[in-house]
Amino acid sequence: MSNGVNVGIVGATGQVGAVMRTLLAERDFPIASIRFFASARSAGTTLNFRGEEIVIEDAAMADPTGLDIALFSAGATTSRAQAERFAASGALVIDNSSAWRMDPEVPLVVSEVNPHAIDEAKKGIVANPNCTTMAAMPVLKVLHAEAGLARLIVSTYQAVSGSGLAGARELATQVRTAVRDENLLQLVHDGSAVSMPEPTIYARPIAFDVVPLAGSIVDDGEYETDEEKKLRNESRKILELPELLVSGTCVRVPVFTGHSLSIHAEFERDITPERATELLSDAPGVQLAEIPTPLEAAGKDPSFVGRIRADQSAPKNKGLALFISNDNLRKGAALNAVQIAELVAERLRAAANA
Amino acid sequence: MSNGVNVGIVGATGQVGAVMRTLLAERDFPIASIRFFASARSAGTTLNFRGEEIVIEDAAMADPTGLDIALFSAGATTSRAQAERFAASGALVIDNSSAWRMDPEVPLVVSEVNPHAIDEAKKGIVANPNCTTMAAMPVLKVLHAEAGLARLIVSTYQAVSGSGLAGARELATQVRTAVRDENLLQLVHDGSAVSMPEPTIYARPIAFDVVPLAGSIVDDGEYETDEEKKLRNESRKILELPELLVSGTCVRVPVFTGHSLSIHAEFERDITPERATELLSDAPGVQLAEIPTPLEAAGKDPSFVGRIRADQSAPKNKGLALFISNDNLRKGAALNAVQIAELVAERLRAAANA
Repeated sequence: MSNGVNVGIVGATGQVGAVMRTLLAERDFPIASIRFFASARSAGTTLNFRGEEIVIEDAAMADPTGLDIALFSAGATTSRAQAERFAASGALVIDNSSAWRMDPEVPLVVSEVNPHAIDEAKKGIVANPNCTTMAAMPVLKVLHAEAGLARLIVSTYQAVSGSGLAGARELATQVRTAVRDENLLQLVHDGSAVSMPEPTIYARPIAFDVVPLAGSIVDDGEYETDEEKKLRNESRKILELPELLVSGTCVRVPVFTGHSLSIHAEFERDITPERATELLSDAPGVQLAEIPTPLEAAGKDPSFVGRIRADQSAPKNKGLALFISNDNLRKGAALNAVQIAELVAERLRAAANA
Repeated sequence: MSNGVNVGIVGATGQVGAVMRTLLAERDFPIASIRFFASARSAGTTLNFRGEEIVIEDAAMADPTGLDIALFSAGATTSRAQAERFAASGALVIDNSSAWRMDPEVPLVVSEVNPHAIDEAKKGIVANPNCTTMAAMPVLKVLHAEAGLARLIVSTYQAVSGSGLAGARELATQVRTAVRDENLLQLVHDGSAVSMPEPTIYARPIAFDVVPLAGSIVDDGEYETDEEKKLRNESRKILELPELLVSGTCVRVPVFTGHSLSIHAEFERDITPERATELLSDAPGVQLAEIPTPLEAAGKDPSFVGRIRADQSAPKNKGLALFISNDNLRKGAALNAVQIAELVAERLRAAANA
């Protein structure tokens, strides 16, 4: 262990996999060896890591023996199929998909919020939260510790990179077509006047539009999307508040990267905007911003939080309104997974030295 | 009166003024004569109306005598300076600015919601609500009548045309610069990688971004914007619920036209999503949509409403979540003013025939 840990990335060729590779290099993660895994289609090709060409292995066929940590970001299907096999070989799996998040034997961890839960990974799997939920957790954790979180009402402004590169391409293609149209400013008066390619990723055009349906409606008669349910269920699990009241509306907006949340929160005990601002000014993973925006958050680590006010529809000093923006590909996915890996690497080092 | 009413438009050259001219022609408004007013700068030029060239008069200098109805959309400063003078000459002023909305002697009217209030125009002025508030009123009125509205939590997705043509130009210019940059898709990973012109209208870039500060912060220590205060105060006045609990977060999004609202509402009596959908299916000024979007609403009259669900953070059957999109230049401004004018014209005709 003195030379670091043996790390694998499953889904190394994807959008989040690419950010994981960057972060492992940037953050000087203690690596003894690194292996990349992807689908059969990419197997045999190579990816550069710190000047070395790493041959990509087929995740379904490779023998994971020897890995200490496996970072999974290849979708829920691959995670369901492969995570237990990797864990059985002795690797701790840190899974970025939704596959294992609600399994009671799998901790759901935000590195600044509930790192202790890593030790409860009975299946050898730790889950990384949904990117929208993630953005809010470092902020809400601190406010909850102060005043007791009772209720969350959230409307989101989610970036297209949350749907992978295909989402980003759909926005770019629609915008490029629209701006070539000399009638662009006609959009001011009549959306139908400008031609745009038919949407394929989203249910409606995303350029110069907002689509109040991020994710897909879950077929349980509640008319909520899976994103809206994740927001509720994952917030409850991470904050260890199984009865927390949560209502969300998840909306896709024409932003490339950076998820934002407009949050109206209620508390059991008194909290003022001034006290909340003071607490958040040195909260880990949080940065105060006068006007947080996704474009500012993109490429950066913290959850930017601002517009902190009293929620004037709540009882006096019992409600806050605030706005959060965070990079959904970094903290919202790759960064948190790497931060969990760092905590695991520390535990492995401590165990080796014990 | 048998030949219709004598109408004036103050601010006829502006964005909303242009839509007013279109609507008066499209809707066969009963016009005996029409006059256009604008600033001294435009006075003397002409605008075509139904094939006739109308010479624009200087609003500050013109004698309004003879007008039955004056539609004002030239900003709050002009309305404060001129509305009472026009009203004193015998015209009923329908004012689209914020100047008179909270005056207790000036009714604030949404044509489908509280048309009766027109008769209480003690100053000869009727005010047209803020476009964001307007979008929600035809929907909330019907739900309130059924179940007694108690609390509103609103996050908005407001179009740049709400800031006039300058807002639309700022979005168009920033987008055009960004898409010319061959690094456009680099925005996916790092917002700073693409060059965009400095913002002038908004506090942050609006292309591929969201700016959680629509309007300006009011200097009363509450950290709310004037838009957020209008949403509260105007909702209370229009719905005749002076104690209604309202908390809003007003956000600008890169959409040309069409304001949207994510609403979480609480009620005194039971209401289910199914009952709400049934009520809204034939509510005046409302159209159900599976996925309401601003691009679909642009150029159309109704408030499109969808994503109607139980607010699961509220007591059972006491909360609803829903999403509304509406054209902020039509119903949000010009259309409602013209609809009020139609109601006034009917009253004038009835009075003339009495």
